[in-house]
Amino acid sequence: MVAIVDIGITRFGKRKENIFELAKESTQNLLKYNIDFVIISNSYSGEFNEISGISSLLTTYLNIDNIPSLRVDNTSGSGGSALLIAKSLLEAKEANVVLVLGIEKMSDKKTKEVTKIISSLLPHDERIASLPSLASLSALEYMKKFNAPRESIAQVAVKNHYNGSLNPYAHIQKRVTLEEVLNSPIISEPLRLYEYTPISDGAAAVVMVRNEDALSYTSKPVYIKGIGTSNYTAYISEKEDFITLPAVVHASKKAFRKAKVDKIDFAELHDMATILEIIQSEDIGLFKKGEGWKAVMEGITSLQGEIPINPSGGLNSKGHPIGASGIAQAVEAFLQIRGEAGERQVKNARVGLSLSMAGYGNSATVIIYGDEP
Amino acid sequence: MVAIVDIGITRFGKRKENIFELAKESTQNLLKYNIDFVIISNSYSGEFNEISGISSLLTTYLNIDNIPSLRVDNTSGSGGSALLIAKSLLEAKEANVVLVLGIEKMSDKKTKEVTKIISSLLPHDERIASLPSLASLSALEYMKKFNAPRESIAQVAVKNHYNGSLNPYAHIQKRVTLEEVLNSPIISEPLRLYEYTPISDGAAAVVMVRNEDALSYTSKPVYIKGIGTSNYTAYISEKEDFITLPAVVHASKKAFRKAKVDKIDFAELHDMATILEIIQSEDIGLFKKGEGWKAVMEGITSLQGEIPINPSGGLNSKGHPIGASGIAQAVEAFLQIRGEAGERQVKNARVGLSLSMAGYGNSATVIIYGDEP
Ligand SMILES: [Ca+2]
Repeated sequence: MVAIVDIGITRFGKRKENIFELAKESTQNLLKYNIDFVIISNSYSGEFNEISGISSLLTTYLNIDNIPSLRVDNTSGSGGSALLIAKSLLEAKEANVVLVLGIEKMSDKKTKEVTKIISSLLPHDERIASLPSLASLSALEYMKKFNAPRESIAQVAVKNHYNGSLNPYAHIQKRVTLEEVLNSPIISEPLRLYEYTPISDGAAAVVMVRNEDALSYTSKPVYIKGIGTSNYTAYISEKEDFITLPAVVHASKKAFRKAKVDKIDFAELHDMATILEIIQSEDIGLFKKGEGWKAVMEGITSLQGEIPINPSGGLNSKGHPIGASGIAQAVEAFLQIRGEAGERQVKNARVGLSLSMAGYGNSATVIIYGDEP
Repeated sequence: MVAIVDIGITRFGKRKENIFELAKESTQNLLKYNIDFVIISNSYSGEFNEISGISSLLTTYLNIDNIPSLRVDNTSGSGGSALLIAKSLLEAKEANVVLVLGIEKMSDKKTKEVTKIISSLLPHDERIASLPSLASLSALEYMKKFNAPRESIAQVAVKNHYNGSLNPYAHIQKRVTLEEVLNSPIISEPLRLYEYTPISDGAAAVVMVRNEDALSYTSKPVYIKGIGTSNYTAYISEKEDFITLPAVVHASKKAFRKAKVDKIDFAELHDMATILEIIQSEDIGLFKKGEGWKAVMEGITSLQGEIPINPSGGLNSKGHPIGASGIAQAVEAFLQIRGEAGERQVKNARVGLSLSMAGYGNSATVIIYGDEP
């Protein structure tokens, strides 16, 4: 197995720096290591930035141009996929020290163009839909089936904006009230602006080694205890319902089985929209199906609750630079488990989970991290 | 270590089928296996086809939508990188049966647009150059430094078109004479049209398992004996010369060391332009620097020679659908080593080598295949 021994991250948000400068900012304290492989987690450098071959352009820019590199893409789930690949390269002894750099520079394009480009992950004959509109279908179906009050969904945004306000790397570092969330502009009925992730630029990086080498890098490695990954049909018309994400269910089962744990202390989920956090909290087995909304209302998933979800602020407040998000989750797990998360520190954070998801559950990667191998 | 147990490939060329149909054609005999991971080797689906999230769209289209998938990109070297990742996933036991599908649909765009998109792999301030023009610099420097006759370079195209004429999957199945090559239209002085790879659509696929499982799939697995990969600066202005590709030198040294062989029976090189085959044949150690041209003239690298290079026709005649090329090389190695290469069969082909290269030597992956582990 493998461990994370150091991390780097930029503040997420609308950044004036270009993709190369963001890469440098996130890796400046990491290039001292004897890195022998670089994985770039990035989806849209071609579409957003007119750059291809980004893996060798980035290693060249960072002056580590003799180190092998490649790009891993799985749209919003790229980060989880890239961490799985890094783990595999290390365990196969194709590499000894891997730098995984997640990065996306989205604000080079206007919002309308970004939305159109991201819709290109939908099957061609279903591109009339969009990810935000699918989330609204989930919210409607979930509320109806489980008698969940509208407020319980909006409360996710209140919680995650609160957490984000404590995270110096978050895009939106501003608390919002339930009233403000429910009065923010409608995006797709019933969901409102503050319930969706903003469009962000940013980069996040981790350095990974095999367990047996970890203690020579740091006295507090964060171990990857297990990874599970699964896919599900990309066709909206083939999905049975909008209140479960089968890829998430299967990926998390695999991850828990591999990690040999049954309890986690916190989770970073893929809350592209508020309702997704609730659905995913059930799909990974924290709550029974239909009861995730109660956990939010009761504060169980708050920073001081029994099982804090998205202590970083999540995609909702931290932002979602596509290729960077899954790596930023690993960064958060690293900081939390080492007790270095500052004001947003989760108490007794020894085992954490991240969920990196592509499309509307087309693909999911669940990773379980711990302070022990 | 790992082995290839089956393959599929489409004919390369200007195909009327879309990217999904090409994927189906190349994998139709492979989906019967108990595949548990799919790696898509593809670089430009966003730019060429307005498709993102191609890995889950393809698994959905192929009706294997529960199987985890992701995309590996390293521009022209994507195939080599994808094979390295497949090997690592298998050895790390993250997967047991991996389908690697290399694919690119280039002809949706006009040639001028394709050239512009591919130039996006050059550093921004060096995009006045293009890969074809860099090859011409190599040719000029090589001829001058080693007193190589112009004909020796053109002879690579004669040889590779001959080989391609024997390959039912090749884009250009037409022999050319030395005179025809030297009289074909100038692309970048001194190199001519027939010396460059055409723009092609196509797909190629391999199924890989760990060595210990290989014989339960086929009585003639083709084993991957070693992979070496290396990068080199993407900056043209930082390259010392144009007659050596340091990433190729280092990657091949690593591959030979890992494979524990010192002799190969054939090689599939990355002949995006004729001169590159000569330079690479030296860089991988088959000939001394400056003597590769003689080997071509003497027929040593011909199909009936001592060390046939590009028996498939190479990129020059087989074509170069970017993400598919490296996988097509593995397909050729599989067919040659099993003695199933038909009219282009190399005699006593027991150990083969492929070189998958990104940019103008920004990254290189060398793979050595054999009939024994
Ligand atoms: Ca440099």
